[in-house]
Amino acid sequence: MTAVIAGLYVCSDSTSFVSERRPTVTVVPNGFEGDKHATWTRAADSRAKSYPRGTTIWNSRQLSIVSEEELAEIAAALSLPDITPEQLGANICTRGLPALTHLASGTQLLVGDVGLYVTALNKPCINPGKVIEAQHPDIPNLANRFVKAAHDRRGVVAVVERPGTIREGAAITLVAPASPLQPGVARDPA
Amino acid sequence: MTAVIAGLYVCSDSTSFVSERRPTVTVVPNGFEGDKHATWTRAADSRAKSYPRGTTIWNSRQLSIVSEEELAEIAAALSLPDITPEQLGANICTRGLPALTHLASGTQLLVGDVGLYVTALNKPCINPGKVIEAQHPDIPNLANRFVKAAHDRRGVVAVVERPGTIREGAAITLVAPASPLQPGVARDPA
Repeated sequence: MTAVIAGLYVCSDSTSFVSERRPTVTVVPNGFEGDKHATWTRAADSRAKSYPRGTTIWNSRQLSIVSEEELAEIAAALSLPDITPEQLGANICTRGLPALTHLASGTQLLVGDVGLYVTALNKPCINPGKVIEAQHPDIPNLANRFVKAAHDRRGVVAVVERPGTIREGAAITLVAPASPLQPGVARDPA
Repeated sequence: MTAVIAGLYVCSDSTSFVSERRPTVTVVPNGFEGDKHATWTRAADSRAKSYPRGTTIWNSRQLSIVSEEELAEIAAALSLPDITPEQLGANICTRGLPALTHLASGTQLLVGDVGLYVTALNKPCINPGKVIEAQHPDIPNLANRFVKAAHDRRGVVAVVERPGTIREGAAITLVAPASPLQPGVARDPA
């Protein structure tokens, strides 16, 4: 199955968590043009446990990527008809990468001329849960249940390695990070 | 065994490959202050196989890190008395991380207030081999043999996650990247 870009999204409103769909996006050196996460640095938050909250650190979360397949799994776990990339504030939704969240850090996603570098899996936070809960006021405790259901299904975050343009429907090529020989593997004599 | 900073090095001469030892370094948001690799972008070279040579890409090689233990292994494989971090153009030499090159992409190295993020293992190139060969003109074919001996012992490259100051002798704390549950592991109901 070929992996493709199922949807592209930009969050241009700095006061909102939700992103908006676009048929095409311009990728600048630190994110999607016009997206509030397109910065070189950010303030450490609860996800950056190695640093005091508020410390200025490298922004390794320029882009948030989710997969259609994992969103369907989250929705099924919550008995909801769907969970959308917009609700999660995602920038890219993929189709054909059912275990997107399991990609190792250092994996490259090549889309046309654009290169993205996966920095980490994305840990679920309560914010999209609140968005989803507000849209389904009849279902109790949805925000907290979202966090649990989204664990290991929340996709990955990435940085831009090579800027360019991405269009919906474009094919995605994965490049795994280089791995060393395992310890104990015989070497050729030098 | 505690991992520590055995040596710090800066390459301030843009025409030279070799780095020079410093007792302390100032870490700026994109590398070591005064080092020629401290940039946000770089031109794709033979190590960036996903991109045409010369393309401007994200500089995921702000810092080069080697370990004393692996340098000793390379030297032993080449029957040399030593291989130095300076010869390899390294920025940091560690002590107490004998399998430094095996650290996964996404591993954090915390040194005092400073945070570094490992982006990749470092593939051996011919340049340090040429430096070493020039210093041992009596030993044949050392440049090419270095590349082979250094495979999977060449350390890692990293970017700055949090700037600050690093002193020789400082302790290093490793933080492994977050991993997902393995597929098939039972989940709590959401």
